[in-house]
Amino acid sequence: MTSAGLQLVRERLSGTDCVVTGGLGFIGSNLALTLADAGATVTVVDDLKAGHGGDRANVDDKQVAVIVADVGDPAHVAPAVAAADYVFDLAGQVSHVASISDPERDLALNTISRLRFLETLKRVGSRARVVYTSTRQVYGRSAPLPISERTVPHPSDVNGVAKLAAEHLHLLYARERTAILRLSNVYGPRQHLRNDELGVLPVFVRRALRGERLVVFGDGRDLRDPLHVDDVLDAIIRAALVPEAAGQVINVGHHEVLSIKQLAELTAAASSSSPTVVHDDWRSDYAQVAIGSAHLSSSLASTLLGWQPRIGFADGIDRTLAWFSQHPERFA
Amino acid sequence: MTSAGLQLVRERLSGTDCVVTGGLGFIGSNLALTLADAGATVTVVDDLKAGHGGDRANVDDKQVAVIVADVGDPAHVAPAVAAADYVFDLAGQVSHVASISDPERDLALNTISRLRFLETLKRVGSRARVVYTSTRQVYGRSAPLPISERTVPHPSDVNGVAKLAAEHLHLLYARERTAILRLSNVYGPRQHLRNDELGVLPVFVRRALRGERLVVFGDGRDLRDPLHVDDVLDAIIRAALVPEAAGQVINVGHHEVLSIKQLAELTAAASSSSPTVVHDDWRSDYAQVAIGSAHLSSSLASTLLGWQPRIGFADGIDRTLAWFSQHPERFA
Repeated sequence: MTSAGLQLVRERLSGTDCVVTGGLGFIGSNLALTLADAGATVTVVDDLKAGHGGDRANVDDKQVAVIVADVGDPAHVAPAVAAADYVFDLAGQVSHVASISDPERDLALNTISRLRFLETLKRVGSRARVVYTSTRQVYGRSAPLPISERTVPHPSDVNGVAKLAAEHLHLLYARERTAILRLSNVYGPRQHLRNDELGVLPVFVRRALRGERLVVFGDGRDLRDPLHVDDVLDAIIRAALVPEAAGQVINVGHHEVLSIKQLAELTAAASSSSPTVVHDDWRSDYAQVAIGSAHLSSSLASTLLGWQPRIGFADGIDRTLAWFSQHPERFA
Repeated sequence: MTSAGLQLVRERLSGTDCVVTGGLGFIGSNLALTLADAGATVTVVDDLKAGHGGDRANVDDKQVAVIVADVGDPAHVAPAVAAADYVFDLAGQVSHVASISDPERDLALNTISRLRFLETLKRVGSRARVVYTSTRQVYGRSAPLPISERTVPHPSDVNGVAKLAAEHLHLLYARERTAILRLSNVYGPRQHLRNDELGVLPVFVRRALRGERLVVFGDGRDLRDPLHVDDVLDAIIRAALVPEAAGQVINVGHHEVLSIKQLAELTAAASSSSPTVVHDDWRSDYAQVAIGSAHLSSSLASTLLGWQPRIGFADGIDRTLAWFSQHPERFA
């Protein structure tokens, strides 16, 4: 987060009551820590489900209260959200490949649990501003690029279907105070690296840290617009603070568009272990969820939130590798 | 169905194996009987859940095999679908008001049960052509009118969210042989009349048959494009038979656009009991799901399916009242 952005956070969020669901996960924990640093009272709700990327070690219990529960569990969630000024709803199944192996679980977690969560907010009479983080995946294979919010979504996996339904549920329950962000590929500190099913970037980062070869499937020409998590936090917090964001679905991507091959090469270049980049055939389960090139137009985010990504990939991946080098237990 | 349409059905569907989910309901039973009349072997899967509009009396057991089961129940569904040439997936929670009182049930039925149904089709290696009937409700409050398929959906109730997710699931599982139809307000023989929560048209029909006053909420100026069920059957069957319909989401509405007030007046005029039309304030639970004017552009259906609605409302409502007059047990 830029110093100007952090200043905004401190001024506006200090002393407020914030809930972060999925707050032991990658983006959630970074957000929870940023909010706590800014002087907010932060409660994290996370079910720590296996394979979802949540990790107890991601937050400092001295800074953040942690409730280990599914967001759909009203007994645990109601007390946490009753007094919240801001609810950052980041919980969710995040593995597209796991979504194929157990689609029903994905659908249930992202829709039924979310509906229960929204019913809980309604029952406690919540007036909180809400930000729900969705994903570029809701668009599926889309053209033309970059993808704008005017594009009709065609999710290409059950995860995308479920996240899109969750967006709609959010807007049904509290349109007047809820903003939806559709994020492109996010990377950075605290990302879960051990699971191959959470995306290409964490796999590259882990392999670079270990000095292993970076494997690009196919020709690696598909384009992406990766976002450093600090840029994402900036967008999430602006979406909570800017009144005009309520009721809106907003793309959050990067104007720097790179091929998967370039991502591998830049990651290798930033790594002290000098890993090689090699090509291999698609694994069939990956090929099944492959969507070709996909990147987002963030012009609405720019207009509405005054948001711009500030971290280019070469810089961002450098910072990311540096952070993990200080935390070798994360990738060993 | 027109005689030309029925001829098409007979030629193409005679001797085929057809499954109709929700086949004891309003549209489903009309479809099942039409298919059986055309010489198809028809199996109906219907859970007869209370409030869903299914009625054992809707089909003749001599013509149609009936399996009483949830579509998500593989033990009952797998044998039925294994040999099917055509699957008409019409099952689903249909009450928008009930969707408010028990949204989780609606979401579970329309998404989790549907996912299990699709998994069952996949497991038995089905190659059936599939038609899924969705609803105009997925668009929510939309502009401009008439609504085209290029409009980004913004469902205005949980039922719309769930039906849209079900559309996406269908296209994920078998895009190459599945067509999605989004239907406007449908009326006609076998519609469930006893439940006030299934839409304004069945309420008008029941009250007209009973000689009761027809109550229009508010000024009644909201526009609709009602469709007689025979026109819907024509669209459903064409969607199953036309190869180019696979992978498409297709609006099915009427070029005859009428206000709710006009619908009441035309229903009253067609009724032998000469009911009066009165205005009343909105009921709060109805107001909550009100979406203003909404009608569909069916130009894609015209181009792709060669389909046009053939029954105007004055004629269609006359036929509908005549049919129910022959079946007084349906509205007594």
